[in-house]
Amino acid sequence: MAYFDAASGAPLHPVARQALSASLDDGWADPARLHREGRKARLLLDAAREAAAEAVGCRADEVAFTPSGTRAVHTGVAGALAGRRRIGRHLIVSAVEHSCVLHSAEACEAEGGAVTRVAVGRTGAVDPSGYAAALRPDTALACLQSANHEVGTVQPVAEVAEVCRAAGVPLLVDAAQSLGWGPVEGGWSLLTASAHKWGGPSGVGLLVVRKGVRFAPQGPADERESGRSPGFENIPAIVAAVASLRAVRAEAAQEAVRLRELTARIRARVPELVADVEVVGDPERRLPGTVTFSCLYVDGEALLHELDRAGFSVSSGSSCTSSTLTPSHVLEAMGVLSEGNVRVSLPPGTARADVERFLEVLPGAVAGVREKLGAPVPVTRAAPEELLVDSLGKRCPIPVIELAKVFGEVPVGGTVRVLSDDEAARLDIPAWCQMRGQEYLGEEPAERGSAYLVRRVS
Amino acid sequence: MAYFDAASGAPLHPVARQALSASLDDGWADPARLHREGRKARLLLDAAREAAAEAVGCRADEVAFTPSGTRAVHTGVAGALAGRRRIGRHLIVSAVEHSCVLHSAEACEAEGGAVTRVAVGRTGAVDPSGYAAALRPDTALACLQSANHEVGTVQPVAEVAEVCRAAGVPLLVDAAQSLGWGPVEGGWSLLTASAHKWGGPSGVGLLVVRKGVRFAPQGPADERESGRSPGFENIPAIVAAVASLRAVRAEAAQEAVRLRELTARIRARVPELVADVEVVGDPERRLPGTVTFSCLYVDGEALLHELDRAGFSVSSGSSCTSSTLTPSHVLEAMGVLSEGNVRVSLPPGTARADVERFLEVLPGAVAGVREKLGAPVPVTRAAPEELLVDSLGKRCPIPVIELAKVFGEVPVGGTVRVLSDDEAARLDIPAWCQMRGQEYLGEEPAERGSAYLVRRVS
Repeated sequence: MAYFDAASGAPLHPVARQALSASLDDGWADPARLHREGRKARLLLDAAREAAAEAVGCRADEVAFTPSGTRAVHTGVAGALAGRRRIGRHLIVSAVEHSCVLHSAEACEAEGGAVTRVAVGRTGAVDPSGYAAALRPDTALACLQSANHEVGTVQPVAEVAEVCRAAGVPLLVDAAQSLGWGPVEGGWSLLTASAHKWGGPSGVGLLVVRKGVRFAPQGPADERESGRSPGFENIPAIVAAVASLRAVRAEAAQEAVRLRELTARIRARVPELVADVEVVGDPERRLPGTVTFSCLYVDGEALLHELDRAGFSVSSGSSCTSSTLTPSHVLEAMGVLSEGNVRVSLPPGTARADVERFLEVLPGAVAGVREKLGAPVPVTRAAPEELLVDSLGKRCPIPVIELAKVFGEVPVGGTVRVLSDDEAARLDIPAWCQMRGQEYLGEEPAERGSAYLVRRVS
Repeated sequence: MAYFDAASGAPLHPVARQALSASLDDGWADPARLHREGRKARLLLDAAREAAAEAVGCRADEVAFTPSGTRAVHTGVAGALAGRRRIGRHLIVSAVEHSCVLHSAEACEAEGGAVTRVAVGRTGAVDPSGYAAALRPDTALACLQSANHEVGTVQPVAEVAEVCRAAGVPLLVDAAQSLGWGPVEGGWSLLTASAHKWGGPSGVGLLVVRKGVRFAPQGPADERESGRSPGFENIPAIVAAVASLRAVRAEAAQEAVRLRELTARIRARVPELVADVEVVGDPERRLPGTVTFSCLYVDGEALLHELDRAGFSVSSGSSCTSSTLTPSHVLEAMGVLSEGNVRVSLPPGTARADVERFLEVLPGAVAGVREKLGAPVPVTRAAPEELLVDSLGKRCPIPVIELAKVFGEVPVGGTVRVLSDDEAARLDIPAWCQMRGQEYLGEEPAERGSAYLVRRVS
């Protein structure tokens, strides 16, 4: 049994459990009350706020505790936008933010605001010049994650913060994936994080708003948490969250080196062990514990189940595994293969032996899924030098498998036309061409779905 | 040491602690994930939802877990209003709702909606005819608490629900104070509650939306909790909340009888033991554990500190104890005395001996505060039959104390004019007149603050 999905949520750190249990006795009462139980709760809350501020690198009165990282982002984006409404209603985000940031951006648009989504390169990183180009006189806020949650790529936050600062625009940093590893550098204005990502309990997020940043909380008023997070404070969980943040920080430097070695080994070995694999994300500027790869001709959900049966819990950004049936917006923005996608995110303390066993199990799991998917291909000869593959009604990764199966039958210079009504084909057929060195000619509308044209180059 | 502030937050029930501890092992992972840890978390969440639905008396898919009762109310009111925007933007609330409902109403007004606040009688209860009169063709939603949080008065929810149903208007019931005692009767449409009020952990609220009720969640989209509560679910706390709800319900019938006897004793004995006390709230239709009284010539905060020193944790709705320096809106709406206000709310399991000791301690505590406040009175004879009391710059309860001290000096038929710039005087001087059988003549604007005129009748 090995849990390799820390980027979704880390198991509770022993220090968090201890602190939670201890503070259930003293932290349950209303900290706004004047009686002894209320005063005890208030003391715990104040101490937790001081400690959180120290870990973030800010003032205690800049920290509000929220019920989750998602709520911190929703509140932070809405409050910062409203605080600068007189400047304008333009919001900048990267194309690879967490869905809670992108959903906040959609809410901004729904209310009449404008959003610029800054593109990323093939490693998933933004270029600070992309933010510089996106800034407008009416820009109210810019958002950038400290590191990507799906591929682990670390973003140039300090550089982007500097670009924003020069333009007088506040930058909100979603530090959900990195705060356990260390403070976020640079002149950011707002910061959000989520305790269960670093081994704290569920139910605690952080919203930091630097002094001087214009901020107007939205929604019904409430006195708690400086008016930035309505509702009764969850003090035992807050105490546990902060205690575990301090604990993981104390181990961070050493653990980062160890996990980085393990993920480097996965990055190096997977392409040697499995054919037709693309390891994605930046090989250097990345989170210590996260590595992501995509396997051609593989259904992500099926692979995830194979690995689960073999005792490994991983996550997948493939369309096949998400409830919306659209491929991961992160992989799409990076322009890399989405099919057969696997994210391995190691929690601190992961044993080397578990990683080695994962590398032993993976090739068989991929081969098993590929074998099951080896469906016969309906081929119709359309013209002497063009093959037609009808994949209508078939879901990722079948269209690419059928393309690959017939590709050898066309002469060099000839083309294959793939008919598909699966959204993922739009992403995966060009990605296959790039991996195979073949020429992607583009997409044409078809009676149903689209036709994707590929020319055989070699 | 006796904690008599259960209406603010009850101590953690042993069953909640046990369930929390147990589910920390199986409930920490993301229930949206397909791996075994995710599936375990999902099973716990599904089971908790079933059990919560059974306790509420609704379907499981009508229940969403929120991070607090306040968030449940904010989300419920905003979503129900938005769902019926085409009908109109009129909202009905009672004047004695919890502040989170009233703040939601203010947010509705800020966005261009209209709000009717239904008055209450001297016991704090609404009359269903008040809701009937408030209904308009553009009424989108009505809200009513199941029982009042400050005075314990139980509201006629079933009758008001029937009035609303006949008009096709949904009723949202804030059941925060009563859900631990039993399900809410009647044909309500939405229901909210808060786990820490019944001995569950902090961090869990309930939002129930009946099938067929139009509901449009506001704010950024999120897939979790049917789109009604964004952010990572706090499953261990949810499991503990539901487990403790079942546990307190199992004890509720017996415990209600016991606590009702104890509060009946407080209601009866306090006026016998302490002079110039008004016990407020309905003597019959009330929560088992809550009793509230106000003491003339007493500063609520000082009394609270005296009782705290004697080992009793209570709460106060006096202006002196709130950070906003306005008297409790509940006491104001009831038209009862707000000064020297004490709310005693007994948690289940309260020992009779503790209540007896409270009754022993109370008279001395009140006398002590009254003695400290016995300040000399600056009296100027303005006219043969009118005395002027200048209480400008003095805070509640000093104006009433000074009024009482000089009252004997005017002849029957004469008047006292009290100058005061304290908001509470507007409430407390008429209340004093009612308690004393003297005639309140009204308020006149003065150079600073207001002049309050009282005629001596007997």
